[in-house]
Amino acid sequence: VTAAPAVAPRADDEGRFARGALVGTGYIGGSLALALTHAGRVGAWVGCDADRERLGRARLLGLVRETAPSPAEAVRGADLVVVAVPVLAGPAVMRAIAEAVRPEALIVDVGSTKQSIVAAAATLPDPGRFVGCHPIAGRERTGPEVADVNLFRGRYVILTPVAETAPAAIEAAAALWRAAGARLTQMDPAHHDEVMAAVSHLPHVVAYSLILTLAGLSGEVGRDLVGMSGAGLRDTTRIASSSPEMWRSIFLDNRACVLGMIEAFAARVDALRRLIATGNGDELVRLLTEARAARARILEQPGS
Amino acid sequence: VTAAPAVAPRADDEGRFARGALVGTGYIGGSLALALTHAGRVGAWVGCDADRERLGRARLLGLVRETAPSPAEAVRGADLVVVAVPVLAGPAVMRAIAEAVRPEALIVDVGSTKQSIVAAAATLPDPGRFVGCHPIAGRERTGPEVADVNLFRGRYVILTPVAETAPAAIEAAAALWRAAGARLTQMDPAHHDEVMAAVSHLPHVVAYSLILTLAGLSGEVGRDLVGMSGAGLRDTTRIASSSPEMWRSIFLDNRACVLGMIEAFAARVDALRRLIATGNGDELVRLLTEARAARARILEQPGS
Repeated sequence: VTAAPAVAPRADDEGRFARGALVGTGYIGGSLALALTHAGRVGAWVGCDADRERLGRARLLGLVRETAPSPAEAVRGADLVVVAVPVLAGPAVMRAIAEAVRPEALIVDVGSTKQSIVAAAATLPDPGRFVGCHPIAGRERTGPEVADVNLFRGRYVILTPVAETAPAAIEAAAALWRAAGARLTQMDPAHHDEVMAAVSHLPHVVAYSLILTLAGLSGEVGRDLVGMSGAGLRDTTRIASSSPEMWRSIFLDNRACVLGMIEAFAARVDALRRLIATGNGDELVRLLTEARAARARILEQPGS
Repeated sequence: VTAAPAVAPRADDEGRFARGALVGTGYIGGSLALALTHAGRVGAWVGCDADRERLGRARLLGLVRETAPSPAEAVRGADLVVVAVPVLAGPAVMRAIAEAVRPEALIVDVGSTKQSIVAAAATLPDPGRFVGCHPIAGRERTGPEVADVNLFRGRYVILTPVAETAPAAIEAAAALWRAAGARLTQMDPAHHDEVMAAVSHLPHVVAYSLILTLAGLSGEVGRDLVGMSGAGLRDTTRIASSSPEMWRSIFLDNRACVLGMIEAFAARVDALRRLIATGNGDELVRLLTEARAARARILEQPGS
């Protein structure tokens, strides 16, 4: 790693950062680096990644200009730090950079859970300069090869500042995401984790369980179902192609909320099962009709 | 209804039918009528529908040339009968047409379950002229307005002939579907119903249950989840926008198979739940990786 250049230690008046550290060079981190470079918000990125091979690819792809052997080395001299690792690894990264990061640097993350990373920010020299961020974007892709400069365009990013977060840090983080084309909203970290357990983590549990059910069918049925599904199964299980590592991390990090949602879901499945078993067609139609209306309501974009 | 014209009572040597009866003028039936008219396989359609208003729209749209007040009236003089009603209503339609239908007419259906309609064919004057058919197409649309001449192009149609089905009837039904652009395969009716319980009926139970779980969340979480989902929830629950009437019918008609699949699914959900609760990350990653590979295998098109 090259020595840190002599630059302003934080964003200038135009919201530009001279040196960004990207800890984790996967799809989301790589896309954010691309978008901020493209928007002229970050002069140069130094990247690091526990997967050295992926880090090499991110550099060859031009997502980062330099590489560093560790998070602590990467953040030295940086005025912006982006933590983009699987959420279970986030707190360890925060501890690893605590000694080396400039107190004035803005630190953001992109993880799908927020309570643990926000708690880990307490180890930073200035916890007020950390802003938890969750971009609602990603689909089932992985790796720096598919990094997309437009990934965040028009998508929501949830900021999860807490009482000690500096208002200037919140504004600086918001400005970065706006530069990447995102729309912003804010939530308390615990509330965020509950909402995401509902709209994202539970659907992943469900999609994985559904495909595992089919995979577990033996004999002729297991053989003949191959290729016999319409678009329904394809769409219902699309997110079961997501990264196993990332989802292990999310399920375990947000364990309590996810378990609560699974319990609520299992009760709903059982309610439908009972209506089918008893042949209660009227109540079935009522519930299925309610589901259709609820879906339209839940998927509607606020303000649209 | 006009009197039946004096026409050949069955397909001519070119596989053309002078007069088709369409019992049920919804999306699937309407699309098949359009496709067969367009392919020059049916001279004129007479339609009937328990929903008189929908029948009127199907006629205005030109899907059928004439209308009839009942299935029995519709099939009089027809050399082709297409039964395209919700599957629970199928057996009653078969009984209703048994007296009026020409013994030589070819009779097909388009339902998503096959055991009950195949059993009901026993009431026909010549059960050998009935061929159970299930086009794997449809998505969540309903109504004659969205009928699509290309709906079946490149899609699979499963034929479910039984021992008494006449080989000539099977060939005539296959020729019709090929004229609509479909690809063909065959299954035993009971086997079909098991396979479909896995790849289609269970995913619908799951999608409905998932959206009902979210709809049942109260307080701030229930409020704030609106609009906060990514593409994942949208895709996972797309089929929960399907017709409640149609799915009540399928769930109840294929009750035993659907209940078996729900039981297998609930066990898979519970297995994931236990791994999350106990923090068994290694086994979680193993299962999620298995799911991803299984999905690719199950969704692959045979022969592709």
